[in-house]
Amino acid sequence: MHAVIMAGGRGTRFWPRSREKKPKHLLDILSDRTIIQETVDRIRPLIRPKNILIVTGRRHAGELKKQLPEIPAENILIEPVGRNTAACIGLAAVHIRKKAKDDVMVVLPSDHGIADPAEYRSVIAAAASAAEKKSALVTVGLKPTSPHTGFGYMEGGASAGQVSGKKLLRVKAFREKPDRKQAEAFLKSGNFYWNSGMFIWKASTILAEIRQFLPDLHAGLTTIEAAMGKASEAKTLAAVYRRLASVSIDYGVMEKAKDVFMIPADFGWSDVGSWDTLWEISAKDEKGNAATGGSFALFEEVQNSLVHSPKKLVALVGVQDIIVVETKDALLVCRRGKSQDVKKIVDILEARGKTQLL
Amino acid sequence: MHAVIMAGGRGTRFWPRSREKKPKHLLDILSDRTIIQETVDRIRPLIRPKNILIVTGRRHAGELKKQLPEIPAENILIEPVGRNTAACIGLAAVHIRKKAKDDVMVVLPSDHGIADPAEYRSVIAAAASAAEKKSALVTVGLKPTSPHTGFGYMEGGASAGQVSGKKLLRVKAFREKPDRKQAEAFLKSGNFYWNSGMFIWKASTILAEIRQFLPDLHAGLTTIEAAMGKASEAKTLAAVYRRLASVSIDYGVMEKAKDVFMIPADFGWSDVGSWDTLWEISAKDEKGNAATGGSFALFEEVQNSLVHSPKKLVALVGVQDIIVVETKDALLVCRRGKSQDVKKIVDILEARGKTQLL
Repeated sequence: MHAVIMAGGRGTRFWPRSREKKPKHLLDILSDRTIIQETVDRIRPLIRPKNILIVTGRRHAGELKKQLPEIPAENILIEPVGRNTAACIGLAAVHIRKKAKDDVMVVLPSDHGIADPAEYRSVIAAAASAAEKKSALVTVGLKPTSPHTGFGYMEGGASAGQVSGKKLLRVKAFREKPDRKQAEAFLKSGNFYWNSGMFIWKASTILAEIRQFLPDLHAGLTTIEAAMGKASEAKTLAAVYRRLASVSIDYGVMEKAKDVFMIPADFGWSDVGSWDTLWEISAKDEKGNAATGGSFALFEEVQNSLVHSPKKLVALVGVQDIIVVETKDALLVCRRGKSQDVKKIVDILEARGKTQLL
Repeated sequence: MHAVIMAGGRGTRFWPRSREKKPKHLLDILSDRTIIQETVDRIRPLIRPKNILIVTGRRHAGELKKQLPEIPAENILIEPVGRNTAACIGLAAVHIRKKAKDDVMVVLPSDHGIADPAEYRSVIAAAASAAEKKSALVTVGLKPTSPHTGFGYMEGGASAGQVSGKKLLRVKAFREKPDRKQAEAFLKSGNFYWNSGMFIWKASTILAEIRQFLPDLHAGLTTIEAAMGKASEAKTLAAVYRRLASVSIDYGVMEKAKDVFMIPADFGWSDVGSWDTLWEISAKDEKGNAATGGSFALFEEVQNSLVHSPKKLVALVGVQDIIVVETKDALLVCRRGKSQDVKKIVDILEARGKTQLL
């Protein structure tokens, strides 16, 4: 079994901690390990480091190698440009085909939090077993805990029995990010699941699906595969990638494919998509205040606030719903619920040419 | 003419900028000069440095000498312990009597902001002239701009004519900090003035008043004066001071004295008593946001907030009425209107023995 960890992504949503050189998955926001280290740690009991591939951009490859010394350097696949998840997964699939003829590949985002890693691994193992036996596309459906409008949903279909003690369902339909009313109906129905962005299938299965639904991508991947190990490899990769369309695997394949299955799961997943999410998943005192990253924080008449300040005392007085993030060269003070707007600050800094702060 | 600048006071209200070692008047909060430097700069066109006395505690004497190299070292009078303004002023008065037999002394707080220093000086000069001619106690009454409940008020009495082109009034009554309703009535009447804490009188005048109303203090001052220039000076000062009652000049003398005059004045005075006041007097953008101390601040959907961060970028997102103060080792985020509570943080730090942060 192989793992493919998708480690692209810019560092805007966790500014000022996340920077262009250090996007979220390279940060130790949740613990003293970085998020990608946690991702690797979590899957290692199932998959050996030599079978873990990381797909990333050139800018972050060096830091990734530093953070993950156990992963062989040749397993860090570098995309010349970002072309969304279909290309990323296709590139990993041809690498696995080249290396191992065929194998189950567990595709994982690099930036999620998981509260129950043992349960997570048993779900992944069951999904891998199903992907192997059925030669089908398998995903993980997360039991929704709120009517979140920022995630895609999957509707559960007919039962496909049990696999390794887990329920297996057919996916009846994929639903893009819903509006609030839809999301509430999804939650109420009990038959909708968050799309985890985790995919489990054989390399041969996904490449066959890509050939059917994304023939241009498939042609490009074939060209790349043919150049592998040759002097022209990097040049070919760059030339092909530049011409690829930017398509997500969900839109490009999953929504169109016939045999898609899911394992409904509940292992304490969190997206950690913004400072707001960090507050949500952090341990809080009785007034709803959280101090993360080893912060020394004092709260005086303060409610529902977050301090992330690894180095410096932060004193809050008389405020509610405030997020404070302190770094060496920049400080963010944000209303809770507004942390999506942090990227506007990044945009302003970019427009003003303050590259050292990006 | 002598100036006496009262430079006592702890560094709690402007924490984390102000510290035990650096109370407010030693900080460059308002400009690139510290507040006491501004106070000296402001009075210097009227009074030569050799006639400017500073009364302070031992802890701050060194920093004062560094900040005010033009003031002769012997003009920095060190109180062994703080004993409120009556003792402070009395000590300065006996020093002036010893040095100059008698002279007008202009007693000034060390920590006020003045927008119009030329007008300020013409008021002080007129007050000095009145104090000289009438051998009376003269104060400066500030035209109130709001029904402030944190200041003492003076009620204007009969006119005492003009002096150097300024109106001179008798003070009919001193009123301690009023409640809101009283303060509003004072403001409406047009005949009440804020007590500026600036006093102008001859050394002989105030010492006579102290003899009448605070005989114990007068006896102590006489003992101190007798020891001046002798080997026993420091020991006598320490022994006498320790036994003195802690009384303000307002309560101890002004409220009881018969001949008290005031010059109504309007020279853009501000107390700079807290971070809230700093916001009030700072230049603000059209949304009411101020960035002081050379701060690099970004405001995204922010109103009526203050950033004081001389070194580091501060980005505010989606907040209102927030004060952010950034220093090398501590960060304050405070609701506007709550900056009085900053001293509670100082108390907590003290209780926890975090002396390096005090």
